[in-house]
Order: sequence, then C-alpha cells, then structure tokens
Amino acid sequence: MTPSCEAGLHLDPKVRADAVLRLKSIRGHVEGILGMLDRESVYCVDVLKQTKAVTGALDKVGALILRSHLQHHVVTAAQRGDVDEIVAEMMELLKYR
Amino acid sequence: MTPSCEAGLHLDPKVRADAVLRLKSIRGHVEGILGMLDRESVYCVDVLKQTKAVTGALDKVGALILRSHLQHHVVTAAQRGDVDEIVAEMMELLKYR
Amino acid sequence: MTPSCEAGLHLDPKVRADAVLRLKSIRGHVEGILGMLDRESVYCVDVLKQTKAVTGALDKVGALILRSHLQHHVVTAAQRGDVDEIVAEMMELLKYR
Amino acid sequence: MTPSCEAGLHLDPKVRADAVLRLKSIRGHVEGILGMLDRESVYCVDVLKQTKAVTGALDKVGALILRSHLQHHVVTAAQRGDVDEIVAEMMELLKYR
Repeated sequence: MTPSCEAGLHLDPKVRADAVLRLKSIRGHVEGILGMLDRESVYCVDVLKQTKAVTGALDKVGALILRSHLQHHVVTAAQRGDVDEIVAEMMELLKYR
Repeated sequence: MTPSCEAGLHLDPKVRADAVLRLKSIRGHVEGILGMLDRESVYCVDVLKQTKAVTGALDKVGALILRSHLQHHVVTAAQRGDVDEIVAEMMELLKYR
Repeated sequence: MTPSCEAGLHLDPKVRADAVLRLKSIRGHVEGILGMLDRESVYCVDVLKQTKAVTGALDKVGALILRSHLQHHVVTAAQRGDVDEIVAEMMELLKYR
Repeated sequence: MTPSCEAGLHLDPKVRADAVLRLKSIRGHVEGILGMLDRESVYCVDVLKQTKAVTGALDKVGALILRSHLQHHVVTAAQRGDVDEIVAEMMELLKYR
C-alpha cells in the first residue's frame, strides 16, 4: 500500500473500464501469438510484428491511465501535500519508457 | 506469406519453445492486471507498474527472437540473395522500438 | 508564447545551469563524432555507439528538466487553474519517449 | 579496434557524408538550445520539446547508419565468418533503443 493509495487516489472508473476492455483484447492477442508459435514453420519476423503490436496496445493502455493519473492526481499533489511521492513515482514510471 | 517464409526461414525450435513459455507467463500477468482492475480502489501507478513489467517481458521475448533471426537468417541473406527484403523487414521492426 | 509561459512558469535556475553544462558536453560529444566521421575507415558500429551515448546524455537532460517541471509546475496546476494545458503538454512530451 | 574493423568494414561514403551534414545540423540545434537556456524566463516544456527534437534527429542518423551496416556488413557475416561478433554488436546496439 502506497501513501497515495491511503489518500484515496483511485483510478477513474471510466478509464478502468476502458483499460479492462483493452487488456482483454491484449490477452486475446497474446493467445493468438501462442497459436502462431504452434506452427513449426512460423517465421521470426511474423512473430516479432505481433509482439510489437501487443507492446503498442499496452503502451496505449499505459497512456490512458497516465493521462488520468496526471489529470486527477498529479496536478492536485500540491493541494494534498504529497508532492515528493507523486514526483518520485512519475520519474520511476517514465524511466526507459 | 512473405518471400522469406517460402525460403524456409523458420524460428529456431528452442527459441520457439522458450517464447511459448514466456508468452504463457505474460498471458498470466495480463490476467493478473485484469484482476487488479476489478477493485474500485485500484491505484493508477500500481497498474502502470504492471503494464510496464509486461512490456518489459514482451521486449525480452522480442530480443530472443530477434537474436535468433539475426543469427540464423540475417547474416546469411547475402548467400540466399534476399538482402533487400531482410533489410527492409529489420528496419520496419526496429522503428520506434 | 504558451499560456504557461505567461503564468511565469520558468525553469528552475539550478536545473537550468546544470542543463547548460550537460548540453555543452553534448555539443562536444557531437563534435567528437564529426571528427570520427572524417576518417574514411570509420566503422558503423563505433559511430552508432557514440550517437547512442549522445541520445542517453540528452535523455538525462530531459529527465532533469522533466523532474523540475513536475515538481514546480505540474503538481501546482490545480491551484493555478491550467490543468488542461499542463496535462496536454505532458502527454505530447511523453509520446514515443 | 574491433575485429570487424580489421576486416575492412567501413561506413559507406555516401552515408558518412549524409551523417556529417545531419550531425552539423544537430550541433547547431544544441547550440540553439544553449541560447534558449540563456534566458531566465525559459519555460521547461519549450526546452523539452527541443531536446526531444534533437533526439529524433539523432535517431534518424542512427537509422541511416544502421541500415547501411545491415546492408553492407550484417547480411554478409556468414560469408566472412564473423557471425558471433556481428550479432553480439547488433544486440548491444538495439538494447533500450
């Protein structure tokens, strides 16, 4: 449990519902790649294109949640008084993105 | 079907088996994030850390397959005579990685 | 001139001084790569390692300024009332990072 | 000196000339950011947009050289017999790109 969690910082319900839909689709996509890998004759680049597409889909989920986090929690940190934690979390998340 | 596929360029069986194990673990990880998102009180940053971890795991699968592709198919392209396709595919894959 | 600029959001002087030092070093590094490229016998990978090092150094400058921006301007956006601009700018910056 | 260097693997002259032009423009861009940073009132995001633009320009130089390296040196590695070095170098370069 992070301090921010105790402060009642929850993911916006609409964004949460959207993320669920997208992650279900991502799970299906991973399933599809597993299907491709059943074939002995599968070509490396065809798999790589699919793993790259899944990474792209995950990045979109990440961007949605990040935007919501910025909008609802980061811009209000000074008012709440947890600037240091919020900034440290953001910097950790943005490393090697 | 790509030309390279017709040339019999298949993903190395050991790498394929390793990729399958890793993608099953990734599928489980995505399942876990879906579980987190069931909770109304879930914190944005906790989800973002998990989607980032999945991206990292996918990048490892990608790196394994890419190394195998380089080792078995790219370095032999001049001998096979499909340099242009192989290079074009590589450049497409490496865009915005 | 962005609206945020009119609101007097300036880069922290210490961070600005640090960024200047780092960018002077980056300029010297670019100069060094130009020197390498004078040699006809220069090897591709040696150049690529250097351009990658410069990108890494630029990313560090970016991280310093981003941390300062978060700490001084983003977390106070709700108080100032420019949340939409601040969030939009952040999302634009973080695209394809 | 890498083994590949001894094998006479040189950067293609046209690509080298193109890289020089681009790096001179990048040096000028860095100079421009240093000029921005002279102003006390400079806004963080304006600097970040410029460092990001320079990173993009460096990535383009990197992509040009990488394409040339693939086309002239990587696809011929099996013929030359330096597959292990060439693959190891490529994997090192592509890490966290």
